[in-house]
Amino acid sequence: MNKFIRIRALSIILVLLTVLPVFAQVKKNSLKLPAIPGYELLKCDFHMHTVFSDGMVWPTTRVLEANQEGLDAIALTEHIEYTPKSEDFTSKDHLRSYAIAEKSAKELGIILIKGTEITRRMAPGHFNVLFVKDANVFETFVNKDDTRDGKNIAETLAEAKKQGAFVFWNHPWFQHPENRSEWQKIHEELYQKGLISGIEVVNGDRYDSLVFKWCLDKNLTVMSNSDIHAPMVLFPGQYRAMTLVLAKDRSEKGIQEALVNHRTIACMEGQLFGKEEWVKPVVENSLIVKARQINDKTAILEIENISGIPYKLELTDASGIKFRLNSPLNDFTLDALSQNTITISSSNFVKGTEYSVKLNVLNVQVGAGKPLEYILKFRL
Amino acid sequence: MNKFIRIRALSIILVLLTVLPVFAQVKKNSLKLPAIPGYELLKCDFHMHTVFSDGMVWPTTRVLEANQEGLDAIALTEHIEYTPKSEDFTSKDHLRSYAIAEKSAKELGIILIKGTEITRRMAPGHFNVLFVKDANVFETFVNKDDTRDGKNIAETLAEAKKQGAFVFWNHPWFQHPENRSEWQKIHEELYQKGLISGIEVVNGDRYDSLVFKWCLDKNLTVMSNSDIHAPMVLFPGQYRAMTLVLAKDRSEKGIQEALVNHRTIACMEGQLFGKEEWVKPVVENSLIVKARQINDKTAILEIENISGIPYKLELTDASGIKFRLNSPLNDFTLDALSQNTITISSSNFVKGTEYSVKLNVLNVQVGAGKPLEYILKFRL
Amino acid sequence: MNKFIRIRALSIILVLLTVLPVFAQVKKNSLKLPAIPGYELLKCDFHMHTVFSDGMVWPTTRVLEANQEGLDAIALTEHIEYTPKSEDFTSKDHLRSYAIAEKSAKELGIILIKGTEITRRMAPGHFNVLFVKDANVFETFVNKDDTRDGKNIAETLAEAKKQGAFVFWNHPWFQHPENRSEWQKIHEELYQKGLISGIEVVNGDRYDSLVFKWCLDKNLTVMSNSDIHAPMVLFPGQYRAMTLVLAKDRSEKGIQEALVNHRTIACMEGQLFGKEEWVKPVVENSLIVKARQINDKTAILEIENISGIPYKLELTDASGIKFRLNSPLNDFTLDALSQNTITISSSNFVKGTEYSVKLNVLNVQVGAGKPLEYILKFRL
Amino acid sequence: MNKFIRIRALSIILVLLTVLPVFAQVKKNSLKLPAIPGYELLKCDFHMHTVFSDGMVWPTTRVLEANQEGLDAIALTEHIEYTPKSEDFTSKDHLRSYAIAEKSAKELGIILIKGTEITRRMAPGHFNVLFVKDANVFETFVNKDDTRDGKNIAETLAEAKKQGAFVFWNHPWFQHPENRSEWQKIHEELYQKGLISGIEVVNGDRYDSLVFKWCLDKNLTVMSNSDIHAPMVLFPGQYRAMTLVLAKDRSEKGIQEALVNHRTIACMEGQLFGKEEWVKPVVENSLIVKARQINDKTAILEIENISGIPYKLELTDASGIKFRLNSPLNDFTLDALSQNTITISSSNFVKGTEYSVKLNVLNVQVGAGKPLEYILKFRL
Repeated sequence: MNKFIRIRALSIILVLLTVLPVFAQVKKNSLKLPAIPGYELLKCDFHMHTVFSDGMVWPTTRVLEANQEGLDAIALTEHIEYTPKSEDFTSKDHLRSYAIAEKSAKELGIILIKGTEITRRMAPGHFNVLFVKDANVFETFVNKDDTRDGKNIAETLAEAKKQGAFVFWNHPWFQHPENRSEWQKIHEELYQKGLISGIEVVNGDRYDSLVFKWCLDKNLTVMSNSDIHAPMVLFPGQYRAMTLVLAKDRSEKGIQEALVNHRTIACMEGQLFGKEEWVKPVVENSLIVKARQINDKTAILEIENISGIPYKLELTDASGIKFRLNSPLNDFTLDALSQNTITISSSNFVKGTEYSVKLNVLNVQVGAGKPLEYILKFRL
Repeated sequence: MNKFIRIRALSIILVLLTVLPVFAQVKKNSLKLPAIPGYELLKCDFHMHTVFSDGMVWPTTRVLEANQEGLDAIALTEHIEYTPKSEDFTSKDHLRSYAIAEKSAKELGIILIKGTEITRRMAPGHFNVLFVKDANVFETFVNKDDTRDGKNIAETLAEAKKQGAFVFWNHPWFQHPENRSEWQKIHEELYQKGLISGIEVVNGDRYDSLVFKWCLDKNLTVMSNSDIHAPMVLFPGQYRAMTLVLAKDRSEKGIQEALVNHRTIACMEGQLFGKEEWVKPVVENSLIVKARQINDKTAILEIENISGIPYKLELTDASGIKFRLNSPLNDFTLDALSQNTITISSSNFVKGTEYSVKLNVLNVQVGAGKPLEYILKFRL
Repeated sequence: MNKFIRIRALSIILVLLTVLPVFAQVKKNSLKLPAIPGYELLKCDFHMHTVFSDGMVWPTTRVLEANQEGLDAIALTEHIEYTPKSEDFTSKDHLRSYAIAEKSAKELGIILIKGTEITRRMAPGHFNVLFVKDANVFETFVNKDDTRDGKNIAETLAEAKKQGAFVFWNHPWFQHPENRSEWQKIHEELYQKGLISGIEVVNGDRYDSLVFKWCLDKNLTVMSNSDIHAPMVLFPGQYRAMTLVLAKDRSEKGIQEALVNHRTIACMEGQLFGKEEWVKPVVENSLIVKARQINDKTAILEIENISGIPYKLELTDASGIKFRLNSPLNDFTLDALSQNTITISSSNFVKGTEYSVKLNVLNVQVGAGKPLEYILKFRL
Repeated sequence: MNKFIRIRALSIILVLLTVLPVFAQVKKNSLKLPAIPGYELLKCDFHMHTVFSDGMVWPTTRVLEANQEGLDAIALTEHIEYTPKSEDFTSKDHLRSYAIAEKSAKELGIILIKGTEITRRMAPGHFNVLFVKDANVFETFVNKDDTRDGKNIAETLAEAKKQGAFVFWNHPWFQHPENRSEWQKIHEELYQKGLISGIEVVNGDRYDSLVFKWCLDKNLTVMSNSDIHAPMVLFPGQYRAMTLVLAKDRSEKGIQEALVNHRTIACMEGQLFGKEEWVKPVVENSLIVKARQINDKTAILEIENISGIPYKLELTDASGIKFRLNSPLNDFTLDALSQNTITISSSNFVKGTEYSVKLNVLNVQVGAGKPLEYILKFRL
């Protein structure tokens, strides 16, 4: 029994529903996250496409994929200006994919956010507009200004703001002649006017450290999205790029409030990028440490990682307690959902003493190239 | 770098093609088959759906999936009578998905066969019409007769035959009240009139031994298809149900000739179902055997399986050469693309003698419940 | 970084310990089990060999393997009568492997139980003696009686009993001419005299339903062991055969008390065999169920399996609440450490009502061929 | 049926051989290599340990492991000076492990080479002596000189040379205070006297580029070995470090001649290190390329990698034929035993023309940090 068959079963249900009651199962491939006191830690993807712009799947498939991956919220963000299949479709509504997917999302408990993608040549580039009320109005902006030159993008995003939307800049490196991100004059203008609230630090399989730096320096919300066009094909234990949102409650309003207040973490292929105040509790609540002394020279740590994120650790300082390390082993990884036994040696372990070891969490960054520091404490 | 990203890259290309020349790679997950003297052994899937009936993906995606799996030929077989998304589409053409997918198929060297699915309640059930010339004509057959009762199916299939099409009966167990296949009066009538040429022995993940028996008894072509509606999600080493066709040449005509003359094998999850004359050369050309004598009691066989099909073998008779078996080990498997060392013992091995061992190939059936017999020969 | 390298690192440590303090990690591949109120659920393997009988590894390797798999207790049970490498060893002590492994076991917190294997031809077969005090005394029993005929086995096991040992019969099918288990006169005699307290229902990769029946009928302790001779090679998520012991505390005494009082479960390749009163709490504490009503016809269950055991479920009765099932889906599996969404349909769901569904847990047996019945309850 | 069980079956056979003839299977996990015209490409591991020095397994286990991995030759190289388990063994013979393993090796067709490890503190470090005739003589060298200071290593290796042995320096970084390789005065002396013929460029999971440079500069034989102490635990598709030997025939003599004449390649985790003249034919015979033109702007390459080595390719120059690359995709990997479709675009493809593309094979190095250049040629 495989994933293909399980998903296939779901689509068959649509055919059969009129005939038979049904008992259908989806085996999830869901990134396990620890509970964070005070917040709901929500898994979100705010950038994806369906056949209603240049994607390859029907809108409900995006909901089924999200359900299988245990996502809390998604947005179908069709291009306003690029709809290569439009001659095949009767509807010209830019939220048609939302309308089609809405029922399945509700049934499966997935928060479906209205969104669209404003698609201009770089500069200024592409912008996602979340919590949009009227997407079709942007069609007239394409007609009015010349999208080739990206004129009047400020006017366009002002309309988005007027609708109460949350706007972020997508993949800032896209279509740049050198394939790198550049903060140009137009971006400064949009930023100064408060028309951009976040940027994609991660899009698909690319992370950009410069963009992460911009977010931290300019207090913009860190975003990470799949921008998936094709069907989502993931093996067990493999996850799409997503934005982890620390929301006060699991609702559309809760997500919007968290985005506006920058409580997000970019998550990509087992790496986290975010402010220290948000990533630190994720790491600390992922690890359960127990210590046991063997003799005055040896102790054993049992560390369980209850999260789906593998932590890559580097020992930086244990000198205060006269640790020394076997050098080939100063880097080590606590795999996802794993239990680990670590034998440590010292010149003199004393019963009842609390020891602490400083570690860099190499795959969790709190600044561009700057790993989170994690203090592993244990008492013998 | 993962499969998801690779496939995604392909769809991005569509966007970029106007801008940049491209060097794009698809890592295939293709079932490796041995060469069969005198024939091209083609991997085909003659039953699948896209958004243009009740499938969930755009037609070109079916071509990309087929390319990734190394298929030689596919048919997009949209339902004539069941098009739940039709209000969203401008075209009423029942071969619209063919028209959209044609260019990609040609570029990637995949044979795209025109097909459609005649969809009646059981009995008579569903029928695929391959090599169809005019699919839209069947629309009028729906209007004319009452599909609810499946009247005039003979008239409908006669039209298919008039077009020179190849017709087969799909998943004969579908919608049967007991979920089993039943040869009803209407099927006998269609068969007597020569209006059915094959039956699906396999559909998706279900194989039906009774249907296999019908095919052999009535000389109907053995068919095996995915009937995929959702995106195709396969892990490496996992393959869809497919019909292996022994064609005289790799072309649409070659496939049609082979189907008409029953030269097919049903292939599903590492199992083959077909006439002995077609499956035997597949097995024999998959295995390379070398023998080495250790002493008068022991010899070693080195068996390489150069195919992607794992062979499950059961020793049935080695008595002629005074073999005896360690009973827990009389079943063994030669994994896909594997090398195996097998130690055999006898009371008296004689140098220069040819030995032969009779084995049942449990996963290759030449009759319902009847495994292929394979004679493993080696000379010491 | 792979398992091979990690384990290899451990053995290097032995060389280096005099030179350097060390920080060494073992990534465990440990079967995750739920907490059971009132008991410690311990993972034990009471049957294995080292180079000191016919095994292939040094005794400490068995401790490292056990640590990597997160076992709580093991016994090295060398054959008294079969020590093919003895000419290479200076020691004739039958507990030499225990003496060598003792220190590592203590350091890694693994309970190492003194054991040995009394090895007679069938009948009577092989018997493991746990908590043995003097193993060498059995050497004289070999000399005194004729092991070829298995005479005086009662006298031998009486000596074991005198030492306060726990005796169980190993792989009762071994060396039987038809490779099946048979309760012979000698076994009845030993049983009547109280000289056998348990039997291996599982040995390595073989489970025997007849032996399970004997255990339940005769109130003997259910045992499951690896009987490993070669190095233990397991892929992640693959586990050896083990005896799950419901002990009052995690200690040698605790294990002995539980064995004597039959509080064990045989565990093999994702299957459990045991008395209903012991397996039921394992299943119930593995599954967390949440329900959500969509409308009067549809509800969604979110089921998390927090254990490493995959549960194969079969719906047997939901008639009381007018469930009906989509027949191809009445069997389903909740994978290890998985989250699952199950959509259920009914003719009329009523808010606030508690529903219950009867399921057979096909891979958890409470009698030979008799699955555990599990009542899945949820309130809408 | 798993690997553990298969290997376990083999050891059980030893017990049963007197009773029953046997039909036993080993599923190999063997690195597939292409045929190289003029040579046998042999997979060898010349450095490993058993319980007879500081290893953890019985000698025959090393042969079974080698058989499972499809190795052609191995050497059990016990330390002369470090035998921590010696008090348990009756034999003081330093080739005792060879004597025990010899019969199995012969039966399974594995070339077992007599070897030992001369173990001095750095400097000079450890040296493996292959094709040794009398290992015990080195015992007296330990007594005579002071191993603590490594005096008289030249005298020791001269004895090895007198026996016609092939001597190589092991893991030159081992016990260096900074954990790096250093060519010290003593090594220059040994080299000048012709007492070292090769060096380990790879030991276990460590490759040292400086050592590779030494080998090429000083014309020393490139060696790569596992130095395995614990049991060998490999997942399918994972291989130990090994030395690929281009021998004129598959024999002990053939291997010795090839080692003396430097015809070796170091192979570790899908990487090859060696002289261009030896690695180039491996790559070229691994890849089968077919081209197909779609139109004047697009062509398709079908590349099959028939080897078990994944090739990581980087496009360096296609300017001569006016290729341009989609920049995120100028690196790509041809997985082991894979088929790949590569779409290439150009401004103007001309039918009948031969095109060539220069690629760096990033995982195949012909100098320290210098990838092999591979010219991919195709005709449209």
